Amino acid sequence: MKDCFLEESMAILGRTPAVLDALLRGLPEGWTEATEGEGTWSPYAVMGHLIHGEVADWMPRLEMILEHGPSRTFAPFDREAQFAESEKKPLGGLLDEFRALRGDGLRRLAALDLQPEQLALTGTHPAFGAVTVRQLLATWTAHDLSHVVQISRVMAKRYRGEVGPWAAYLSVMK
Amino acid sequence: MKDCFLEESMAILGRTPAVLDALLRGLPEGWTEATEGEGTWSPYAVMGHLIHGEVADWMPRLEMILEHGPSRTFAPFDREAQFAESEKKPLGGLLDEFRALRGDGLRRLAALDLQPEQLALTGTHPAFGAVTVRQLLATWTAHDLSHVVQISRVMAKRYRGEVGPWAAYLSVMK
Repeated sequence: MKDCFLEESMAILGRTPAVLDALLRGLPEGWTEATEGEGTWSPYAVMGHLIHGEVADWMPRLEMILEHGPSRTFAPFDREAQFAESEKKPLGGLLDEFRALRGDGLRRLAALDLQPEQLALTGTHPAFGAVTVRQLLATWTAHDLSHVVQISRVMAKRYRGEVGPWAAYLSVMK
Repeated sequence: MKDCFLEESMAILGRTPAVLDALLRGLPEGWTEATEGEGTWSPYAVMGHLIHGEVADWMPRLEMILEHGPSRTFAPFDREAQFAESEKKPLGGLLDEFRALRGDGLRRLAALDLQPEQLALTGTHPAFGAVTVRQLLATWTAHDLSHVVQISRVMAKRYRGEVGPWAAYLSVMK
């Protein structure tokens, strides 16, 4: 069976901007500023985090592996960076920015024309040590989906007090 | 503070077809047929469930409340109906069908021009007894989001074995 890992990953990565747009653009702030409680992220905060990932995490790490192999350790990724960076930007602007950055990243990825053997190349993660190009690309992909999960969960839970007895049928409310 | 419950709920309900389209249309079957294991639903199966909800659950129950109040009990909803109904239909057709049904349902909802006091009207749920129009609309909304959560989670978990040590940072993989 042909291994479609790269194509299948890119099929997700390429559509995430449209998914987030459909989910969030133009929604009332009651939804986009909702959180799961103190210290948890709103959909707005998640957008900032995703933007920072495009700038500082995914493609830069991949390019570091291809250029330097395991000899250089990735810079640690600041998972809270968005609370400074996206301050006061309107959500629509964050969606535009994410779309542009993702488009650029995927063009760079496509231009690399990665061959199967390159997926096994390794880099050095500051916490985990050796990681492969394939694991990095899989994580980028799953990370997108995990934040679509998070955004939708945060918004669903906003109605925990509204659904009455139906909460028993909605496992997302737990 | 003005209560924007109805407008805010409809803002979610109206965009779900576009969210599902962005998430699923044209994706390789490796994603759309993935499940979380035996007896769990693929994104494809979720689409059939959502379609059945439009036909048999949400607006029909609302209309029953407005017409009959609590005197008639809702028909029980078959949460597995999609395994018969959507058999062999292509996913793109299910996305089209859901979009059309949702559009029709929201046009009927808008035409009702529900007034605040009507949100407190009650119907009779076969398991829960008295439920209000407001709870029904909130559940319809949260139910959409809960299935966006599910679809994204199922797809993320497909890469559980691919992400290597990063699984430790992806709570969705647990």
